[in-house]
Amino acid sequence: MRRLWTLEEFPFHPERLNHCETLFTIGNGYLATRGTFEEGYTGELSTTMVHGIFNHAKGVLVPELVNSPNWLPIHLTIDGTPFRLINQNVTTLNPTGGAVLGYRRTLDLYTGVLTREVLFRAESGSIVRLVFERFACLHDDHLMAQHVQIVAVDGTPVIEVDSFIDHRVSNNEAQHWTDVAVGGAGPRTQVITRTNQSGYTLGMAAHLIAPGAINTVMENGVALSRTHFTLQLQESADLYKYTTIFTSRDLADPTQIGGALHQKLDEAVAEGFSHLQSRHEREWAHYWDTSDVQIEGDEASQFAVRFTMYHILISAPRHDDDVSIGAKTLSGLGYKGHVFWDTELFILPPLTLTQPKLARNLLMYRYHRLAGARHKAQANGYEGAMFPWESTDTGEETTPQWSDVQPDGSRIRIWTGDSEQHICTDVAYGVLQYWRWTGDDEFLIKYGAEIVLDTAVFWGSRVEEKNDRYEISQQIGPDEYHENIDNSVFTNRMVVWHLSEALKLMEWLKSHASTDAKRLTDALHLTPERLAKWQDIIQRMYIPFDLEKQIHIQFPGFFDMEFIPVPHYEPRTLSVQAILGHSRSIQTQVIKQADVVMLMALLGEELASMPVLLNNFNTYFPRTDHGSSLSPAIHAWVAARLGLADIAIDMFEHAGSIDLNDNKGNVRDGIHGAACGGTYQALVFGICGLKLDANGELTADPQLPSHWKSVSFNVNHRGQKKHFRFTNPA
Amino acid sequence: MRRLWTLEEFPFHPERLNHCETLFTIGNGYLATRGTFEEGYTGELSTTMVHGIFNHAKGVLVPELVNSPNWLPIHLTIDGTPFRLINQNVTTLNPTGGAVLGYRRTLDLYTGVLTREVLFRAESGSIVRLVFERFACLHDDHLMAQHVQIVAVDGTPVIEVDSFIDHRVSNNEAQHWTDVAVGGAGPRTQVITRTNQSGYTLGMAAHLIAPGAINTVMENGVALSRTHFTLQLQESADLYKYTTIFTSRDLADPTQIGGALHQKLDEAVAEGFSHLQSRHEREWAHYWDTSDVQIEGDEASQFAVRFTMYHILISAPRHDDDVSIGAKTLSGLGYKGHVFWDTELFILPPLTLTQPKLARNLLMYRYHRLAGARHKAQANGYEGAMFPWESTDTGEETTPQWSDVQPDGSRIRIWTGDSEQHICTDVAYGVLQYWRWTGDDEFLIKYGAEIVLDTAVFWGSRVEEKNDRYEISQQIGPDEYHENIDNSVFTNRMVVWHLSEALKLMEWLKSHASTDAKRLTDALHLTPERLAKWQDIIQRMYIPFDLEKQIHIQFPGFFDMEFIPVPHYEPRTLSVQAILGHSRSIQTQVIKQADVVMLMALLGEELASMPVLLNNFNTYFPRTDHGSSLSPAIHAWVAARLGLADIAIDMFEHAGSIDLNDNKGNVRDGIHGAACGGTYQALVFGICGLKLDANGELTADPQLPSHWKSVSFNVNHRGQKKHFRFTNPA
Repeated sequence: MRRLWTLEEFPFHPERLNHCETLFTIGNGYLATRGTFEEGYTGELSTTMVHGIFNHAKGVLVPELVNSPNWLPIHLTIDGTPFRLINQNVTTLNPTGGAVLGYRRTLDLYTGVLTREVLFRAESGSIVRLVFERFACLHDDHLMAQHVQIVAVDGTPVIEVDSFIDHRVSNNEAQHWTDVAVGGAGPRTQVITRTNQSGYTLGMAAHLIAPGAINTVMENGVALSRTHFTLQLQESADLYKYTTIFTSRDLADPTQIGGALHQKLDEAVAEGFSHLQSRHEREWAHYWDTSDVQIEGDEASQFAVRFTMYHILISAPRHDDDVSIGAKTLSGLGYKGHVFWDTELFILPPLTLTQPKLARNLLMYRYHRLAGARHKAQANGYEGAMFPWESTDTGEETTPQWSDVQPDGSRIRIWTGDSEQHICTDVAYGVLQYWRWTGDDEFLIKYGAEIVLDTAVFWGSRVEEKNDRYEISQQIGPDEYHENIDNSVFTNRMVVWHLSEALKLMEWLKSHASTDAKRLTDALHLTPERLAKWQDIIQRMYIPFDLEKQIHIQFPGFFDMEFIPVPHYEPRTLSVQAILGHSRSIQTQVIKQADVVMLMALLGEELASMPVLLNNFNTYFPRTDHGSSLSPAIHAWVAARLGLADIAIDMFEHAGSIDLNDNKGNVRDGIHGAACGGTYQALVFGICGLKLDANGELTADPQLPSHWKSVSFNVNHRGQKKHFRFTNPA
Repeated sequence: MRRLWTLEEFPFHPERLNHCETLFTIGNGYLATRGTFEEGYTGELSTTMVHGIFNHAKGVLVPELVNSPNWLPIHLTIDGTPFRLINQNVTTLNPTGGAVLGYRRTLDLYTGVLTREVLFRAESGSIVRLVFERFACLHDDHLMAQHVQIVAVDGTPVIEVDSFIDHRVSNNEAQHWTDVAVGGAGPRTQVITRTNQSGYTLGMAAHLIAPGAINTVMENGVALSRTHFTLQLQESADLYKYTTIFTSRDLADPTQIGGALHQKLDEAVAEGFSHLQSRHEREWAHYWDTSDVQIEGDEASQFAVRFTMYHILISAPRHDDDVSIGAKTLSGLGYKGHVFWDTELFILPPLTLTQPKLARNLLMYRYHRLAGARHKAQANGYEGAMFPWESTDTGEETTPQWSDVQPDGSRIRIWTGDSEQHICTDVAYGVLQYWRWTGDDEFLIKYGAEIVLDTAVFWGSRVEEKNDRYEISQQIGPDEYHENIDNSVFTNRMVVWHLSEALKLMEWLKSHASTDAKRLTDALHLTPERLAKWQDIIQRMYIPFDLEKQIHIQFPGFFDMEFIPVPHYEPRTLSVQAILGHSRSIQTQVIKQADVVMLMALLGEELASMPVLLNNFNTYFPRTDHGSSLSPAIHAWVAARLGLADIAIDMFEHAGSIDLNDNKGNVRDGIHGAACGGTYQALVFGICGLKLDANGELTADPQLPSHWKSVSFNVNHRGQKKHFRFTNPA
């Protein structure tokens, strides 16, 4: 096992079934598949999520990323006993239904190869050792490979094999697929199907290689590749299964999918498993070469930064600039695959710094959805581009307006799609951060500028001039416990930042790309009056601030609500909101996540002097219950910048372990992508203090936890790979 | 939390209840108490084991260490809701029976203080934060201290308190106590009772300090210290409970126990909790000053060496040389508190090297039991001293002859008490190792020599002269899968070693302590003829060895049995014996634990040349299933010496994690003391290659795993503390 690179489960922990499925997800940026088992398991949540394949099924409030056919199934029987993970540690010599005598699962983060070893006794008494391996080729979006080694440890077992693609899948019972065409011959089977509303066609084909002759058998509408053979004592056999996938998003003509599937299968069979694995692993090494972070002196943190980066890398589209990463990556059904601010402010930055091509793809996804954003602005009576709080393939607002049914039968109104408008600024932040780190002027000029400017146009139309100043009413800031409040300091201040940046950008464009400046001026109606209004907003925007206490006010009235001493509510795995109950907590000062502190992370000393920043932190930190997984990383980042070393490392460890520890019990729904990206930022921007100075040069101000020996990493800066290593004094 | 010194459970894991109770045991070398809860829990295994208090209860096959009265109980009710660990994470605002909203338990190995924080909601809706602390004073064998802090987080709860000593205890239903006298007045309660066969008297008294007035109330024969008080919102209260203990082993006159209990309670109350804690922690620091091992570059191993040393230190008698450490330390009922070879060959060496006074106590326990050993020899028709395989207070053989009832209703004959005679040599090994490392000639002359020589006398009478050589029939070696075999190479070769050492010892005594040499010669009848026979045995003992293959043979006929490729049986948490079934496995070459390899650990290159040692290892390692927790550490030690670095670190990690991981599910019965001591030896003797050369000087030959940065530790050598630090090349 590669040390500090390997996630392990030993022995089998059925009580952590769905949690582990999420952790052991594999993927290649085109699709990802949860770590469910080849033979299945009662209660499993098996998903394969393919980027961009959204569908709006009947009876579901909003479109969702579709659970695609399951390419994993390889069902084995040993002397007639179906291999299943049952009767763990039962020592009966002829166990009814068989028995699992041993189990170990490992995911090598360095190679993205998932391995499972099982020792299994059949009813006959025969014992087999099974080693399952699988990976989604990183060198080829459209190919997945599986290997099963079977060793006859005791007895001379007859092995029967059924391998297939299972199209009988759903999203929590919601049916997305129609017109399923199943076929097969010899060692090959295939499924071609179509989403029933959005009309995406998806095809998968599989090829099984086994010691015995393989026939296709149709059972219950599924095409099985079936074979059997007998092993002598101590003999072993190898099965290989290759699966290919294409969709109508890949091929303009869906009728070409069948041919593409089989051509790629032919190539895979010709190449063979070990060659495929070598190419796959070389590709992974290339990604880790830039994206790995080494921490000496803290093994849990070392593992956490690798685990979180792995989950970003497997979900980041590599050859597709029309899709983006949902809040739960591609690893579960949570949040329906929708794209939130999580992407631009949490997941994007590690890619901007270490895999700029992938970062660019994510930003292009937003560019391609400007039409949807403009539509939302228009529908709400505003100008410019207003990005949806939750985004899918269409670019329309897809936040559900109502929650799922609550225990008491009611539904709760969800306001984020209406009021969490800071998403517009968050996307602009991601664009400008990308541009500054990469120096990708071409992207900015052609695509990014339009995003920044047209969202600025939106804000220019959104602000309200009253009380002799500009205000913004009916907002939800990052702290979603307080809904539809007026003058969220986060939103108001970020709008000021946004408009300032937009004006600077216009100047830059005029001097560096005057044709495009003109093009955008015309297209977006960036008249002198409009720019003058932006300047006026910048100067007269209301920024709630307590002059006496020298702190920013999250929103006017915040401190009039009941004070709850959040630190008293320790230890807990629940949010304080859950403990107090919804109706009371919204009337208290309990904060869900970094809000003013988020503003401090994004703007740093541009926001205020260090004494004010410290006042802010000391005020808001003890009021924050981190009810959102986005919170701890931002607190770690800001605490490190403020020299609050103990809080910084505590929050950093919290952020990095959210998925691994699953203390809130919701990892079954998927990886917390924002916590993954936040962990990286807490380390690089927070603990190491890496930033760009006014001239765009890299500076650092490391504040390593005292027990750390060193931190090392690479970042791309304007096309150059720069290596950093920070050490603590011995 | 002290980094890499703290065992943590967060949140509450009821499925690991009994496992965690064992891990979180506290103790002070006089007694140890499992980490059960002040309020109790269904299915708990609550024990307080006091060294030396054995009793043979009716209906039990053999005497056992007695579960003493439970000093932990502090029962709280919050607004009338009994505080219990139920309804974890239930968010109902008025939960029936209350609800646990949060839980964290930590054991600071550096200070031996166990802390538990709980957030609890009563049916009334009031929320309290509870912090429980406890420690068994290391500076005073007879005193234990508890603290409970109660914070009114929400509401104004009425708190009711019942504190008591619970004498209604048993060992798995076996009743050991009689004549229970319970009393109390005001804040004090006491229990005085007596074991019903062995007649030990034990007394405990407790003093409660609380905000309200305290009364003694008798309920169901138990004396409760009862009080109640009300907390205002955000207010906190502190409870303190001190418990003292004396037995008739401490006080010659049992009628003085009551007075002693209360005098010590008076002192404790006068001193107060924080002063007691300071003194306790200073004492711990003193022990860690010599016993800690620092590993840089491997945090799991770092923690494991501290965890294992902690459990040795809390079970090692510090002021009593008439008791010893049982196989499960004092942390559970497993093996009934009996003392095996585990003590001298596994647990003793880390104490010999780092706490020689404690090591001496353990060896004196054997000295005081020479009468029992002589009785066993005589009863079996031999001369000298034949130590029992399982030893208690009496020194008689206390190995049960029959197992507990098996699932099929039968009992299995246990032969170890008859045939595992190598214990005699193991004790001698412990004596001589102690002497060589400490230079404690006074101990050797007065006590140790008699052990070594009288057990040599036993072997002189035990060997059988036949086939023109000496043989030993009907043995069980360390590999207990093969019972009553003839000419166990481990036993035969260790007897040769033993007799050689005995002869050398005689020479040493003659030149360094001639009076004692004469005394022992007379007392043990060490006639010239007897010594000549020892010399003859040394020369003509049968050492099974395959000249062709150049390997030691575990016993003649071993290689004629069925070969089982043990590595094929991976991954597994069961022994291969359990997988094959008892009746088959005993006819195979599957080995339970280091046997020839154990010989290699004890004798090193004195046993054979390096090629032979390598042949041995390569032969026996793949036949060993480590069905005993004693096995991995010895394999780690020997593998490191043979330069097999990968096996060494793998086995080392296995050894160090046996209790922490509980992969075999039996940690509920207590800590594997031998694995703890073996872990230390694998590190110091194996990985670091520390040993005494022929002149008694320290030499080292470090073979650090490649990922380790350094290992540092202290050892005592002839009264001098020597510091070692080994580093890997950078």
